[in-house]
Amino acid sequence: MLVQFSIVPLGKGESVSEHVSKVLNIVDEGGLPYRITPMGTIVEGEWDEVMALIRTCHLEALKGKPRLLTTITIDDRPGKPDRITEKIRSVEKKLGRELRK
Amino acid sequence: MLVQFSIVPLGKGESVSEHVSKVLNIVDEGGLPYRITPMGTIVEGEWDEVMALIRTCHLEALKGKPRLLTTITIDDRPGKPDRITEKIRSVEKKLGRELRK
Amino acid sequence: MLVQFSIVPLGKGESVSEHVSKVLNIVDEGGLPYRITPMGTIVEGEWDEVMALIRTCHLEALKGKPRLLTTITIDDRPGKPDRITEKIRSVEKKLGRELRK
Amino acid sequence: MLVQFSIVPLGKGESVSEHVSKVLNIVDEGGLPYRITPMGTIVEGEWDEVMALIRTCHLEALKGKPRLLTTITIDDRPGKPDRITEKIRSVEKKLGRELRK
Repeated sequence: MLVQFSIVPLGKGESVSEHVSKVLNIVDEGGLPYRITPMGTIVEGEWDEVMALIRTCHLEALKGKPRLLTTITIDDRPGKPDRITEKIRSVEKKLGRELRK
Repeated sequence: MLVQFSIVPLGKGESVSEHVSKVLNIVDEGGLPYRITPMGTIVEGEWDEVMALIRTCHLEALKGKPRLLTTITIDDRPGKPDRITEKIRSVEKKLGRELRK
Repeated sequence: MLVQFSIVPLGKGESVSEHVSKVLNIVDEGGLPYRITPMGTIVEGEWDEVMALIRTCHLEALKGKPRLLTTITIDDRPGKPDRITEKIRSVEKKLGRELRK
Repeated sequence: MLVQFSIVPLGKGESVSEHVSKVLNIVDEGGLPYRITPMGTIVEGEWDEVMALIRTCHLEALKGKPRLLTTITIDDRPGKPDRITEKIRSVEKKLGRELRK
């Protein structure tokens, strides 16, 4: 399944890029295929491995913070592998041109 | 933590109320505090118990369907219990009147 | 259409109930059917009236704050009126029992 | 403000790439800075121009369909321009390496 998630701390200053760095290092070491976007992290894998990864990120981000807002969107289409690259490719094929990624 | 989730099947007719019934029975038997809203289910509990519940709902809903869209929003504020009722109550106190729930 | 929205200020202390009160007064005066849940506000109406309302709430909430996170989920099913009460009722009919709201 | 949106038709077959193509052509002609990700479209602009664009996409996507689910996430941080590229760049600077986009 394809999963986008984003973790936002409340009540700790407006810049969250330091906090984001910590989360991204966890994702990078996690070994699952992923992409970073300006609005969140997209990762591909089975339920258990993806959710274990997001759990680790959430708990790490929670350290020393009073409140955390985590959003997870799951697009599950069994039998369709490598959707992290193929989803955009199938639209590009239909449009007959490359998209801005 | 307080968690809202919603599970939507794609490609299986426009009414999803039958599918919703199955999910709600699972939530009801799960034993965690919950509320049903016109836009999703809100449940309160620790990460592992809430996520195990959503996983069961997601996998049950996936049966016989080609694609599922599941959205999860987590509001985690450790040390604040019973937020499923208290969050609204604290706003009502501030407003000095009851809210439409 | 049925719309859930939530407006969260970043970087301004962990409690957002004062900010929530301001937003709810705007929604209340807006005149559209609405419900308050522990995770957001649900409102029913046409695109232009709902979006004008959320815009007013967002701009009011932004005052004096460096950053705002606003989430909007739209469930649009033309020709189905009063879904803010009917969506849950149709599930209750299928289940044969009342739901916890 | 930085806005991610995604428009999903319910009840019309599992592949949504044809529908996605139509929406992307509207976004492309809209003239605002944007990026396509495997989970949605990210666009940057002021409230009125971004919402007018999403409204056009939503109404076009609704044609001939019984039901549409549209999700909009707004990250509004006034005075910070070009966040569609700068948000990732500031994290890369902190990490000291390039991210997978």
